[in-house]
Amino acid sequence: MTFQQKLDFIIEKNNSLLCIGLDPVMDILPKHLQDDTYPFFSFNKAIIDATHDFVCAYKPNSAFYEAVDDIGIHQLKMTCDYLREAYPHIPVILDAKRGDTDNTNEGYVRHAFSYLQVDAVTLNPYLGEKSLEPFLNKSDKGIFVLCKTSNTGSEEFQNLNVEGEPLYEYVAKRVTNVWNTHNNCFLVVGATYPEELAAVRAITQDMTLLIPGIGAQGGSIQDVLLAGLNSQKKGLIISSSRSIIFAGKSDDFAQKAADEAKRVRDEINQYR
Amino acid sequence: MTFQQKLDFIIEKNNSLLCIGLDPVMDILPKHLQDDTYPFFSFNKAIIDATHDFVCAYKPNSAFYEAVDDIGIHQLKMTCDYLREAYPHIPVILDAKRGDTDNTNEGYVRHAFSYLQVDAVTLNPYLGEKSLEPFLNKSDKGIFVLCKTSNTGSEEFQNLNVEGEPLYEYVAKRVTNVWNTHNNCFLVVGATYPEELAAVRAITQDMTLLIPGIGAQGGSIQDVLLAGLNSQKKGLIISSSRSIIFAGKSDDFAQKAADEAKRVRDEINQYR
Repeated sequence: MTFQQKLDFIIEKNNSLLCIGLDPVMDILPKHLQDDTYPFFSFNKAIIDATHDFVCAYKPNSAFYEAVDDIGIHQLKMTCDYLREAYPHIPVILDAKRGDTDNTNEGYVRHAFSYLQVDAVTLNPYLGEKSLEPFLNKSDKGIFVLCKTSNTGSEEFQNLNVEGEPLYEYVAKRVTNVWNTHNNCFLVVGATYPEELAAVRAITQDMTLLIPGIGAQGGSIQDVLLAGLNSQKKGLIISSSRSIIFAGKSDDFAQKAADEAKRVRDEINQYR
Repeated sequence: MTFQQKLDFIIEKNNSLLCIGLDPVMDILPKHLQDDTYPFFSFNKAIIDATHDFVCAYKPNSAFYEAVDDIGIHQLKMTCDYLREAYPHIPVILDAKRGDTDNTNEGYVRHAFSYLQVDAVTLNPYLGEKSLEPFLNKSDKGIFVLCKTSNTGSEEFQNLNVEGEPLYEYVAKRVTNVWNTHNNCFLVVGATYPEELAAVRAITQDMTLLIPGIGAQGGSIQDVLLAGLNSQKKGLIISSSRSIIFAGKSDDFAQKAADEAKRVRDEINQYR
């Protein structure tokens, strides 16, 4: 089954375009988990068990696990293993923004797809298609290429005028028209830039786009849906992390996260 | 002591601009190490002990460690710890090519500078200066920004014409003239592109440049030196991995690596 097929199934089943970012931070974890042997895994497991009916994907960001050393990477692995065993129908996107020369990328490919066994990964386009071939050749995996990122200041290079259009549009065209020979390419566009999202939608036709930046980063759900839905009223994976996983801070944190996940899913569906 | 000061000291002491990439690969390790509990660490330690008089830096690439799971990350940590304890005067550059939003980059900063405690890190510029501030604010660390990468196909985006010049030159100017407020910025330029290296040297004046791509990737040492030396006959960290660390494949692999490291160091010095 390809990433797209897996995604299409869960979007229907859960009636959801919501992705939850599994980005734990030790200081913000509920106090009773902080002394756990595997606090990030315990936290993630509780969040996943409470929210799995409201999502179309989970997206752990590698940085939050690397921040707590090799035991952090181990807990990322535990989280991916748990998701695959308990909820095999929900795709997992490793947010790693990797990108190196082709020989070196083989190591990252192994990390993502043989060790963690995730369904998809985010990549940085700066080194070009040839360097990313070890990822692009994985035809059953989802390859999410950064296009227009959600952060303040992403215009510094991404909005530069190249050949009469902004660089992010040029990237979108290359990925859509040249890189996507295996039909496994997707793009990342920040919710904080709805005008750019509309431009990318026009270029990519029905391609699914990963949209971080709602919630703590301030992107508007309504603006994202208006600018980004495809002709089938989907084509978006809308990701939120902190505002869902840290919705509660005490013993009932998982229920609070579920309440917020359901609320955001339903708000997204209002505009579909 | 800043990264630049540490680098200047070892360049003088070892009379060397050579950096060795510590990029172990299980299948290519000497057979007698493959059953070791920590084969990558045992391999690296032998290479380091044999070559430390011929280098100005070591550069482990994270991908090769991530390729062998969390125990790989643990061996990367063991390698960095060993270098800091046994050879504290030799700088360590973590080749990770990271880059995420600013909040997320805090995790990568912690991984590089608190856990691994390396002296420098390589970063991808695509998200822009604002996103990389958690790295850029580390004034005693070396921040190596990808400019023109050594791989085939790096021209796809890096040589696009933006505002009348190729993107990699625009990146070089931004990093040199805008990002470098703490005097801790450096650029990465592939040995495989000497013309572009000359253009970057002209922009950056005496800034130190990290040059991967000699050895297995085919860059010419003479061309690199002619194009890249600064006014003080240095300003280059010339990195080689496979052709040095895998120079021998049997029990004498460390001595073979030392022989090759000395040979490459001396060849570099011929053109200084």
